[in-house]
Amino acid sequence: MKKLVAEFIGTLWLVLGGCGSAVLAAAYPELGIGFVGVSIAFGLTVLTMAYAIGHISGCHLNPAVTIGLWVGGRFDKRELIPYIVAQVLGGIVGASILYLIVSGKSGFDIGGFAANGYGEHSPDGYNMMSALITEITMTFMFLIIILGATHPKAPKGFAGIAIGLGLTLIHLISIPVTNTSVNPARSTSQALFAGDWAMGQLWLFWIAPIVGAILAGLVYKFISPETKN
Amino acid sequence: MKKLVAEFIGTLWLVLGGCGSAVLAAAYPELGIGFVGVSIAFGLTVLTMAYAIGHISGCHLNPAVTIGLWVGGRFDKRELIPYIVAQVLGGIVGASILYLIVSGKSGFDIGGFAANGYGEHSPDGYNMMSALITEITMTFMFLIIILGATHPKAPKGFAGIAIGLGLTLIHLISIPVTNTSVNPARSTSQALFAGDWAMGQLWLFWIAPIVGAILAGLVYKFISPETKN
Amino acid sequence: MKKLVAEFIGTLWLVLGGCGSAVLAAAYPELGIGFVGVSIAFGLTVLTMAYAIGHISGCHLNPAVTIGLWVGGRFDKRELIPYIVAQVLGGIVGASILYLIVSGKSGFDIGGFAANGYGEHSPDGYNMMSALITEITMTFMFLIIILGATHPKAPKGFAGIAIGLGLTLIHLISIPVTNTSVNPARSTSQALFAGDWAMGQLWLFWIAPIVGAILAGLVYKFISPETKN
Amino acid sequence: MKKLVAEFIGTLWLVLGGCGSAVLAAAYPELGIGFVGVSIAFGLTVLTMAYAIGHISGCHLNPAVTIGLWVGGRFDKRELIPYIVAQVLGGIVGASILYLIVSGKSGFDIGGFAANGYGEHSPDGYNMMSALITEITMTFMFLIIILGATHPKAPKGFAGIAIGLGLTLIHLISIPVTNTSVNPARSTSQALFAGDWAMGQLWLFWIAPIVGAILAGLVYKFISPETKN
Repeated sequence: MKKLVAEFIGTLWLVLGGCGSAVLAAAYPELGIGFVGVSIAFGLTVLTMAYAIGHISGCHLNPAVTIGLWVGGRFDKRELIPYIVAQVLGGIVGASILYLIVSGKSGFDIGGFAANGYGEHSPDGYNMMSALITEITMTFMFLIIILGATHPKAPKGFAGIAIGLGLTLIHLISIPVTNTSVNPARSTSQALFAGDWAMGQLWLFWIAPIVGAILAGLVYKFISPETKN
Repeated sequence: MKKLVAEFIGTLWLVLGGCGSAVLAAAYPELGIGFVGVSIAFGLTVLTMAYAIGHISGCHLNPAVTIGLWVGGRFDKRELIPYIVAQVLGGIVGASILYLIVSGKSGFDIGGFAANGYGEHSPDGYNMMSALITEITMTFMFLIIILGATHPKAPKGFAGIAIGLGLTLIHLISIPVTNTSVNPARSTSQALFAGDWAMGQLWLFWIAPIVGAILAGLVYKFISPETKN
Repeated sequence: MKKLVAEFIGTLWLVLGGCGSAVLAAAYPELGIGFVGVSIAFGLTVLTMAYAIGHISGCHLNPAVTIGLWVGGRFDKRELIPYIVAQVLGGIVGASILYLIVSGKSGFDIGGFAANGYGEHSPDGYNMMSALITEITMTFMFLIIILGATHPKAPKGFAGIAIGLGLTLIHLISIPVTNTSVNPARSTSQALFAGDWAMGQLWLFWIAPIVGAILAGLVYKFISPETKN
Repeated sequence: MKKLVAEFIGTLWLVLGGCGSAVLAAAYPELGIGFVGVSIAFGLTVLTMAYAIGHISGCHLNPAVTIGLWVGGRFDKRELIPYIVAQVLGGIVGASILYLIVSGKSGFDIGGFAANGYGEHSPDGYNMMSALITEITMTFMFLIIILGATHPKAPKGFAGIAIGLGLTLIHLISIPVTNTSVNPARSTSQALFAGDWAMGQLWLFWIAPIVGAILAGLVYKFISPETKN
């Protein structure tokens, strides 16, 4: 139960912090944080939670991560569904808090609410195939980073830095393509508020990250060193 | 006494570095650091002090942090008031040094002096309710990060990175709403210089951060793992 | 074999992440990540892989690094060619994935594809001599960082941070001169797609980084402390 | 001798990397790195060298740091002059390499060459008194960070991160005031190339950093915890 509360709070923070920085601060005139700031923000939600709750729940904050760790032999099948439910609920509460804050702005307009999309809803006009390749590849590499940096032979304590900044990197690359998901919970929470178009494209942001994560779990098993310690 | 001098110097640095970067460098034409640079600066004041004085005073630099650590069972009640006094005094001296520097600029104008505000004094026009939710939530998460990253089961030595960059993240999200406080000492020092409107809104930047910190102290007790080491 | 797959994936990530951020996100209107974002992205590809695959292959991702480590007495001559082949192939596959993504954009134009160049192909108009000095010096310092941070007397576990952020620093300095190579594999993969001019200038981005790396291997032997542990 | 070569190379890198990023990349149209990028670059020169040569020479790279460490009881008086000479020479060679690179640009103009200044040579028009206060205060805090993060009771291995990012922070605050020195070697090397005005103002960038460093050495002795390990 402690684990599930931790995943709930952590995913709430990922959505409130990552999507919140995008909605509140990215396009502020002259001084706005742009895609660089949003990328840093997403990464730091994971970095901060890795050190705050990593020793409680493992700090997945993402159904694709949970599934990839299970495929990679690092996570117990019985906890799969509870983790994913806690993550999705946490994301929705994070998005709700963000909605409350944003709606207190003079001249409020919800806009895209940092939802993910492709085709005419891609920030820079990339088609569905580009979106699929991007989300599969980015999640694949995200899980390679996670599986590698948490391997017993990797330096102790640094995984939170590598994984958090890995998510920053992924956003620096791919915000223009899909607004960057690699996380079905984060996509779901924003789609609920952004409306019909986002719900209609949500399937891709469940399927592609999970496919990428499963592939990474299989590939990492092949390249990972033996562990006998 | 060493502890109080350390808290005094550390909070001086938080105000001089964080608010200083905002006042001196954020809006410099073309090359200015914007909200991204200010967010990094605030976080690095805490990161640098965490390693410089963390082993002396614990490096709180913030009355809400001190109160949250006390509620979370990590800080002795008898030191509450001395710590808070040292922090507020440090902040005021930091703001005074900044004032001295800024007043040596040709065509000097104090402007907002990086004070915190809501309603017509919110950078992007958010109302009082948005400001309350933002400051409570952000301080809540700040204390979750602090309590978690300094827990005996968290990786040793990394807390300063997680906490410092956590403050960076909080600024990336919330500068447009309230100019970001989460720290009554920082709000007080700037309000003293910025004038009547800032003093009139100062109550919110004492109450909301402290409420958020107390809630985090209570919640973290519930999710924190047993420690017997 | 595991080592070579790891180098292949890692160099794929360096090219897809570093050049990808440049091609996809650098010049996005208003919110683009600029040279700061691209510099951070290149550095984070190395930082993330250092923790993910460092314990498998050593995480070179760069023929100049492999050669410099060999000259510095840290790498076995027999593995030189296989490592370099795996790196070049990984880079080409990374560039191919990037090409697939980019070609799905409405109004696609390949442009420079983040290839390296000098003279009229230098981003800011630097001549061949400036390019040579820059690439030799930057790779020299990159190898000094790598050889120093992985020395047995350096703090354990931090090398991935120092080396990754070292590559960020190198890009912050030198993108305007050559678009920054310091890595023949990265230059080759982009030149294949960018076309004739890039292939015609590719010689410099093999020779200069390798010269710089060899010099660093020799110099570091002189300044490195004795190791008897 | 190894120590002096290490200080020479390190200070060369600080000047080439920090001032180089400013001269080459800060004001590039649209994509330039601005003061944020320059601040990150200066900090990363120190962070990378801390891990690369810290175990050789202690990685001072700065006469004010060397003097502050001596006052703080951490450095042997007999090595003072050799260290400072090596630092100044390294800075001059770094500036010379930068000059060689820059002079290969079409339409080359040396401009300010990232030299430090006050009054009419302050980037944002701050007078001499503001410059003095800024340089004394910033170097004071830089030495507090250095003395604190390298104290035996501070977490092991993290000093390079705290000190390097501390220099980033100092630049985020004070570039508009003096172009940020806190380092007489860095000021000297640039003044030699920038010309008469910079040489005429150079006195301040020797005196103020050294005064700040001496004060920090004295203050830190008072607040530092007893060490008996």
